[in-house]
Amino acid sequence: MEIRTHTFTLETEGFTDMHDLTPRINDLRRADGLQEGSVLLFVPGSTAGLTTIEFESGALSDLKAAIDRLAPQDIPYAHDARWGDGNGFSHVRAAMLKPNLEIPVSEGRLMLGTWQQVVLLDFDNGQRNRMVVCQLRGNFAS
Amino acid sequence: MEIRTHTFTLETEGFTDMHDLTPRINDLRRADGLQEGSVLLFVPGSTAGLTTIEFESGALSDLKAAIDRLAPQDIPYAHDARWGDGNGFSHVRAAMLKPNLEIPVSEGRLMLGTWQQVVLLDFDNGQRNRMVVCQLRGNFAS
Amino acid sequence: MEIRTHTFTLETEGFTDMHDLTPRINDLRRADGLQEGSVLLFVPGSTAGLTTIEFESGALSDLKAAIDRLAPQDIPYAHDARWGDGNGFSHVRAAMLKPNLEIPVSEGRLMLGTWQQVVLLDFDNGQRNRMVVCQLRGNFAS
Repeated sequence: MEIRTHTFTLETEGFTDMHDLTPRINDLRRADGLQEGSVLLFVPGSTAGLTTIEFESGALSDLKAAIDRLAPQDIPYAHDARWGDGNGFSHVRAAMLKPNLEIPVSEGRLMLGTWQQVVLLDFDNGQRNRMVVCQLRGNFAS
Repeated sequence: MEIRTHTFTLETEGFTDMHDLTPRINDLRRADGLQEGSVLLFVPGSTAGLTTIEFESGALSDLKAAIDRLAPQDIPYAHDARWGDGNGFSHVRAAMLKPNLEIPVSEGRLMLGTWQQVVLLDFDNGQRNRMVVCQLRGNFAS
Repeated sequence: MEIRTHTFTLETEGFTDMHDLTPRINDLRRADGLQEGSVLLFVPGSTAGLTTIEFESGALSDLKAAIDRLAPQDIPYAHDARWGDGNGFSHVRAAMLKPNLEIPVSEGRLMLGTWQQVVLLDFDNGQRNRMVVCQLRGNFAS
């Protein structure tokens, strides 16, 4: 067994901006030849999260609406009162969704469903250059 | 260290149908003789999730009620408007609960609490034959 | 690759009592010399959870308020009706936040953001002596 840690960055817009990470994860898995094991995904920072969803605009906007209900943008936040950041809602959303996700790999394939994609949710209140960690663990072909 | 990837399937009813996976996970761990390491559980597909709970009917119905509040079935969903699937609420619930869970194993034992079971939640809107991935990683006795 | 499983305990007050675990995790990583791999954190029991957040009192109280909205303390719970424990809300909150968290380690460093700490949330309705599992996996210097 072996570990290979990669990172990549992407431009995000904030306010629950969602990005499909599946193609990049698949590329990294293929390039390294991970056959059996898993992929750990992690987003450093406290205003983003990771999950899976069918990546189509309807489901994405439904998820966004549920997150808005969970931690609305237009209520007072103690974080904003103390620091004036204006992104108290972002911190709460990120803590609820959590920054980590792990996908098993078997026979050289991510074991996702056909209509299941890995999604980064950027909850911050502005543009970011967001880093994602993609750690491959297991048995490699090369 | 070594990796062994198993899958199993179970019949589910949807609408936050919950199943205790702990006995099957324990059986797989015991059969393979995993002594030190962890078990990764993952449910492929975008309408189910995994967590832990005290598996008794009261706590289960309380969790179901909280999930109903988070993403009610009787509000409009953009996913349904676009695709007519009628399971927009299922997608949102699954994305919030997430499809992965990991349990540490030490001295040949899953490190769960006494009243803590691993639960699959099927959020879809009908019967499914649901596959679960159970990947054992670590040091095996045999 | 190697696995080293540690546990530690801390005194908790319940009612979404939050503790920053980052210093203890860093100490364990440093003492064992984990260079490349990950840390699995897991809290046995069904009334606590783990996530990350900027550990400052504003963000903490904002997260507490969101969790109160998700599973209020002052509504009826079937768990309490059956068992009289009075901690039905604790079980629901713990199941939603989940008991596991994994942080990647690279070049001898936890890959957390600068303002991102690992937080234990104790949801129970009283004082506890709470155990946390901290499993280090990967390549060690010593």
